Amino acid sequence: MKRRVFVGLLLCLSTIGLSGQLRQPVEQFVAAHQQEIVREFVELLSIPNVAADRDNVRRNATLLAGLLRKRGFTAEILETEGNPLVFAELLVPGAQRTLLFYAHYDGQPVDPKGWSQASPFTPVLRNARLEDGGQDIPNFLALRQFPPEARIYARSASDDKAPIIALLTALDALASMKQRPTSNVKVILDGEEEARSPSLSATMVRYRDKYRADLMLILDGPLHASGQPTLSFGARGNLVFQLTAFGPKFALHSGHYGNWAPNPAWDLTRLLASMKDANGRVLVNGFYDDVPPLSPEERRILAAVPDRPEDLTRFFGIGRTEQVGNNLQEALQYPSLNIRGLHSGDIGDQARTIIPDRATAEIDVRLVKETDPERMLQRVLAHVRAQGFHVLMNSEPDDEMRARYPRIVRISRVESTRAYRTDMTLPESQALIRTLEGAWGKPPVRNRTMGGTVPIDFFIQALDMPAIVVPVVNFDNNQHSNNENVRIQNLWDAVVSFAAVLRM
Amino acid sequence: MKRRVFVGLLLCLSTIGLSGQLRQPVEQFVAAHQQEIVREFVELLSIPNVAADRDNVRRNATLLAGLLRKRGFTAEILETEGNPLVFAELLVPGAQRTLLFYAHYDGQPVDPKGWSQASPFTPVLRNARLEDGGQDIPNFLALRQFPPEARIYARSASDDKAPIIALLTALDALASMKQRPTSNVKVILDGEEEARSPSLSATMVRYRDKYRADLMLILDGPLHASGQPTLSFGARGNLVFQLTAFGPKFALHSGHYGNWAPNPAWDLTRLLASMKDANGRVLVNGFYDDVPPLSPEERRILAAVPDRPEDLTRFFGIGRTEQVGNNLQEALQYPSLNIRGLHSGDIGDQARTIIPDRATAEIDVRLVKETDPERMLQRVLAHVRAQGFHVLMNSEPDDEMRARYPRIVRISRVESTRAYRTDMTLPESQALIRTLEGAWGKPPVRNRTMGGTVPIDFFIQALDMPAIVVPVVNFDNNQHSNNENVRIQNLWDAVVSFAAVLRM
Repeated sequence: MKRRVFVGLLLCLSTIGLSGQLRQPVEQFVAAHQQEIVREFVELLSIPNVAADRDNVRRNATLLAGLLRKRGFTAEILETEGNPLVFAELLVPGAQRTLLFYAHYDGQPVDPKGWSQASPFTPVLRNARLEDGGQDIPNFLALRQFPPEARIYARSASDDKAPIIALLTALDALASMKQRPTSNVKVILDGEEEARSPSLSATMVRYRDKYRADLMLILDGPLHASGQPTLSFGARGNLVFQLTAFGPKFALHSGHYGNWAPNPAWDLTRLLASMKDANGRVLVNGFYDDVPPLSPEERRILAAVPDRPEDLTRFFGIGRTEQVGNNLQEALQYPSLNIRGLHSGDIGDQARTIIPDRATAEIDVRLVKETDPERMLQRVLAHVRAQGFHVLMNSEPDDEMRARYPRIVRISRVESTRAYRTDMTLPESQALIRTLEGAWGKPPVRNRTMGGTVPIDFFIQALDMPAIVVPVVNFDNNQHSNNENVRIQNLWDAVVSFAAVLRM
Repeated sequence: MKRRVFVGLLLCLSTIGLSGQLRQPVEQFVAAHQQEIVREFVELLSIPNVAADRDNVRRNATLLAGLLRKRGFTAEILETEGNPLVFAELLVPGAQRTLLFYAHYDGQPVDPKGWSQASPFTPVLRNARLEDGGQDIPNFLALRQFPPEARIYARSASDDKAPIIALLTALDALASMKQRPTSNVKVILDGEEEARSPSLSATMVRYRDKYRADLMLILDGPLHASGQPTLSFGARGNLVFQLTAFGPKFALHSGHYGNWAPNPAWDLTRLLASMKDANGRVLVNGFYDDVPPLSPEERRILAAVPDRPEDLTRFFGIGRTEQVGNNLQEALQYPSLNIRGLHSGDIGDQARTIIPDRATAEIDVRLVKETDPERMLQRVLAHVRAQGFHVLMNSEPDDEMRARYPRIVRISRVESTRAYRTDMTLPESQALIRTLEGAWGKPPVRNRTMGGTVPIDFFIQALDMPAIVVPVVNFDNNQHSNNENVRIQNLWDAVVSFAAVLRM
């Protein structure tokens, strides 16, 4: 009887320790092992990882499988038609649940000329942000302590190799504390995330059982701009397509035929202008119909995100915002319609006085959980037709069509990724929120839906499990761009957050 | 008394011969001298003439001055800050008037890779139009007779060296017939027409007396599409400018900020769409105000142009026309507003999911005689402002402006050329119409205003003289493009037309 109470008390204290008192020993471990952590990170960053560079991508996979085995995982390389996946598993006796950690080890293509260093795959340490005058710290692998504001510059420094190294280090820290994860841990590392994860998607049927878990944790993306610990419970999807308006079969002289031959750039601009009002509200019929109004509780959660719109508008240099929601977070709960590219004829020194033969817009429709990509596309098509256009899918008009239809638009290059959203009130969601709150002494920033897109909805759908994004890297990391970087303190803090999650 | 009657009768017959009976002997001369004509033409075409290639442009000028001297002209090379002008004069005792022939010897820039021959400056003879399967005729300089449907391919074959060779040949033909021009003849050959004739314009004050004439004949441009002899009494002017709408200072992620940060491509498309209705009528206040309605007589003249709109719409592949005039010719009597280029973000494989930082349109406003370029620009600016945009001239917005103005547009790269129009009822106009009618047995196509622009309004204004375009080359000559060409029969017919004009 006494023994049972004692064990129960121990368990209870242990639970408290996992949250309230975990941070200090993990930080001590990190402080004592900075050099090893950075060396392991630099070794990983030094292997090029552009998805199309298949040999080097495989070298990444092989190294990562080895690093996971070093932490006691059974790790395997899953072959696909594209790049391999790394899958690893650590079974914990008496585990309360199974967590599936997802990260990706491929990176965006690089333009080495745009980088301020010899190569995006030769990591550099700078004592501050490059734009703020950060200077190289030479021979940094010899350092035993790293300035917290220093940054490591390399492709995938933050997107998405830092979270992988932080997760491995969190396991090391727990081991040094003689603690084991409280959950079974599965890890899947994707080699084609920057190419929309086609191979991972293709393995869903075959490996469904292998991937099954109680909660998926997506280690990707930046913290909220405030730098506070952050959880994102959803991500918008994306529907992209190209819209092309056709004019004459070849460009005509704008003098000889101006006022007579129709110009496709006018057709396209008139069509686009009909789709959105001056305040940013989309005018396509039914565009917002599937999205229920936000409840007072949802509005409260959104209002709690510590956005500073005045800082953003100043930083971006914009004199107004669109009026879809009452604030940025509310705006992200609705689908959006965006012109991401526009082209007809030429501009600048290349401009010639012509009536162009075609005008093209690249459109992206961000989706929310309630909006089905195909239904949204059909609504856009109905709108285009209602403006008097004959719509072609993927094909060029032939002579007969050109003669028959006064206005012709082609829709092509259609691709989509669905949105997802995990209910914040689920027990898993609540546990994760409490875990981060325990580690950091304050509740994390909770994003109901991130604005951007994470191409793993197929994963969540197939396995019917909740998924939550646990971002860790600095907001200003130049993700997808030149001079990508991660701030050292973000790397250290990530170890704390992940250790807490492993013990949640 | 008898003698006087006889002389009077001779003069009268001579006048009839000038029109009705000139064609045959000139054609006989041409038939007997095809080889020499083509060889002189090929020698001229073989000297590169892109305006920026100043050494070769000067070689053209030197050759041309020599060719004019061979025909009895006093010829000189007028130096300018840019390329030289060739000026030549032939005084005829008892001349009825002075004619000033204008042509240009420079050509559009070339992209040799786009040409189906070794070089745009190594002329090639083909037995038909390239697009219709025309084949090279090797060693064509050895031919004594040329197939009338054959074409010479070279830069400036039609724009604008063919008219120069035809004029020289017309003088040769008259000389062989022991006839002299009935007018004093001045010739000015421009070396920078394709660059808007800045040097010619700059010589207007210095050489005004030298240039003075009773009628200016512009030897440039193609015949009406029907191939019939053509006169153009006016040309539209052109006002070009660039319109740039500004968004955030740098491109933003369309997921993170879509529905919140304003997109300049929407601002630009909405602005452009507000400028023109679906039928092509410009909605800018006052755009057509300066143009008086066409009189019944003017409409009759325009209706007499043998356009075949069904052929054009089929050839161009357009299923409708704009509704500014009742037909193509009427449409060209009004100013037009055209989008000649449109750009924002990227399209196709380069497209990224961004909110672009700016969106740019290149606009051209074709002007008619009554529309002043500056007044038209001010009307457009007033329209832009009325749509809620703050307008900057030539400069980028600074932070303070970005914060203050919700919508910002920049106008830049403004350039203009005025329109001109010569009254068809003037004695000189009527004489020229009768002259071509006499030579060809039917009245020429009379264009009240050509749709395109000829940058010589400054010339006409400074000298207060009527000017009429006498085009001679084939309509489908690929002017300004790759594989420029002239049809052999057009070259021969041009000699007849110019001989008639010299004897008018």
